[in-house]
Amino acid sequence: MMEDLIHHITFNQDDPNLRCIVLYGEGKVFSAGHNLKELTHKDGSDYHHQVFSTCSRLMLGILQCPVPVIAVVQGLAAAAGCQLVATCDIAVCSDTSTFSTPGANFGIFCSTPGVAVGRAVPRKVAAHMLFTGIPLTAEEAIGAGLVSKVVPEESMGLEFESLSGGHIFQIYVNPSPVFPTDEEVAKIVQAITCKSRAIVAMGKKFFYQQLEADIKTAYRLGEEVMVNNIGLADGQEGIRSFIEKRKANWSHGFEKAH
Amino acid sequence: MMEDLIHHITFNQDDPNLRCIVLYGEGKVFSAGHNLKELTHKDGSDYHHQVFSTCSRLMLGILQCPVPVIAVVQGLAAAAGCQLVATCDIAVCSDTSTFSTPGANFGIFCSTPGVAVGRAVPRKVAAHMLFTGIPLTAEEAIGAGLVSKVVPEESMGLEFESLSGGHIFQIYVNPSPVFPTDEEVAKIVQAITCKSRAIVAMGKKFFYQQLEADIKTAYRLGEEVMVNNIGLADGQEGIRSFIEKRKANWSHGFEKAH
Amino acid sequence: MMEDLIHHITFNQDDPNLRCIVLYGEGKVFSAGHNLKELTHKDGSDYHHQVFSTCSRLMLGILQCPVPVIAVVQGLAAAAGCQLVATCDIAVCSDTSTFSTPGANFGIFCSTPGVAVGRAVPRKVAAHMLFTGIPLTAEEAIGAGLVSKVVPEESMGLEFESLSGGHIFQIYVNPSPVFPTDEEVAKIVQAITCKSRAIVAMGKKFFYQQLEADIKTAYRLGEEVMVNNIGLADGQEGIRSFIEKRKANWSHGFEKAH
Repeated sequence: MMEDLIHHITFNQDDPNLRCIVLYGEGKVFSAGHNLKELTHKDGSDYHHQVFSTCSRLMLGILQCPVPVIAVVQGLAAAAGCQLVATCDIAVCSDTSTFSTPGANFGIFCSTPGVAVGRAVPRKVAAHMLFTGIPLTAEEAIGAGLVSKVVPEESMGLEFESLSGGHIFQIYVNPSPVFPTDEEVAKIVQAITCKSRAIVAMGKKFFYQQLEADIKTAYRLGEEVMVNNIGLADGQEGIRSFIEKRKANWSHGFEKAH
Repeated sequence: MMEDLIHHITFNQDDPNLRCIVLYGEGKVFSAGHNLKELTHKDGSDYHHQVFSTCSRLMLGILQCPVPVIAVVQGLAAAAGCQLVATCDIAVCSDTSTFSTPGANFGIFCSTPGVAVGRAVPRKVAAHMLFTGIPLTAEEAIGAGLVSKVVPEESMGLEFESLSGGHIFQIYVNPSPVFPTDEEVAKIVQAITCKSRAIVAMGKKFFYQQLEADIKTAYRLGEEVMVNNIGLADGQEGIRSFIEKRKANWSHGFEKAH
Repeated sequence: MMEDLIHHITFNQDDPNLRCIVLYGEGKVFSAGHNLKELTHKDGSDYHHQVFSTCSRLMLGILQCPVPVIAVVQGLAAAAGCQLVATCDIAVCSDTSTFSTPGANFGIFCSTPGVAVGRAVPRKVAAHMLFTGIPLTAEEAIGAGLVSKVVPEESMGLEFESLSGGHIFQIYVNPSPVFPTDEEVAKIVQAITCKSRAIVAMGKKFFYQQLEADIKTAYRLGEEVMVNNIGLADGQEGIRSFIEKRKANWSHGFEKAH
């Protein structure tokens, strides 16, 4: 399943028509995390290493993916499933969703989920989740910053029935986009796909890079990024479209302005 | 008082029956921080060094303590008292509690409290507290992530009367636990004590370690921690109990699985 | 405009009567950020470098300014204007204010605003702002920690009309202070100006320094700062005023206690 997600997130990420990726979970569980039955002693520590190394590759792959990755949660996101939500760039959940890191209840502390959750929410919220295993409600999750938006469950119901299957749903702009009917998700997807792919990719890469730098270094690097951005054809086209009060006509690529 | 707290937090932290520590403040003040009368010039800077070095040892001791440390606040937590709340893994407060870092009003900026508060809440909240000295209400404190839960003051009243004394209350599982009657605190303590002590200790140590690493290092270290955790007897017992749908029978120690 | 702001923030920051700086934006827009018309290709990348280097100097200048800098927002704060709010020590906004980083809509991703915004709010909030360009309401902004307080717009209206002009308003204690009439802003300014300038300056410098250090280093440095603070004349005067239950009589300088 993780390999499948990695495949979907990476295999066509250079397709210029891919503008953002939306991860859905079907049914009442977004993702319950690792299958504990795969983690028994008899499988050996080499296999366990492989499982968690794959999991890290998935999470870092989301951060490195050139298009924004959006989690749409309806129901339970637990352990590595909660890590997945915490890792995505943006997350929208139904008002009945819950989020937990209950691994220690089953002897496996959610240490790697804590890497993502501890960077997404205040540390007291993360510690409460990790040490008690008690879930956050959707309301608590948005208060803590774990999700970006909460929507009524009703607005999501139709959507899930109409999806043909799978946990992943990639948004292409061409051929014709299949926008999810949930209004909030559609608004986010619309806001992303109307921008230049290259500009968003450049911005996403720098965003996660600078968060780990000290602020002076972040600004020094950021000045370079801004100047490079302005020098791109899509940078200049964006400015011209603003001045001329018209819709921009993006190349979506990294070509320099003449 | 700080030495007394350090003593209580460290002296029997290796007792296998100790599963979590709850810090209470009796009466209307959780803790008002340092006694300013001890910080006059005549005491000399060696003494001042000792006071703040002891204070740092207490705070780092809480983070290094193998069992979760929970602050239960009823009333005012100010200056180093607010630092104590910010440092504990989990904090529950009554809805009439307040939190402040007013040191600069008395000429002593709350610089060391800011180390803990600045890591617990958004920096604009911390800066407002530190530069103005104006207190946060309980509602503002939970919104900012300074506390984990807010409970009605009434639910705490009984509790404090029934406690025999002291600012510290350690939770042992054996002999019979004296659970605080406040429902939220009891729920948290219950959730922690039903887990393996060793698994929680391993998870807590890594949680604070990885928060200070870059995310790639955090995941690399986290993979090791997960694999080691799975290899423990309590890791395997947890998985088996999950598969067999029964209560786990923990050793609470770090023995490896056979 | 940025040079003008830098000038106002730096030129008399050593004036002992300057106790805090309040940045206002007149009218319905606090600041809409850079003028895109200045960023066209024909201006050349040297000029673009200069623009963003000046912008970073402004932001770092606010953090290095010895007195607290307060943003008072009425209306829109966008792009570098939102960065300015995120950078100020404290921010108060009207309940109709909005905050956005919409640069990518015009081909220029808000990479440098993201340095400040990404350190002020949870990363999912920042990512949503940066990738979609959709604004935060005042209510969302306080929930995320981007502003310190929200006040009714009515309480601000009078204020802006009565201000004679300019985007910056510096608070001096002598000659007679012109306190803004908004109650929340006045409360903050009052709380800052009643403290010792030197003590606040020392605390502000350490606050931003320690946030970028690991926690052990932060405490080690913090112990030194506390001991130095206690050794100042204003530190001792503060303690004495507390003990003697009287108003402190600050020197506002860094003289050592005798």
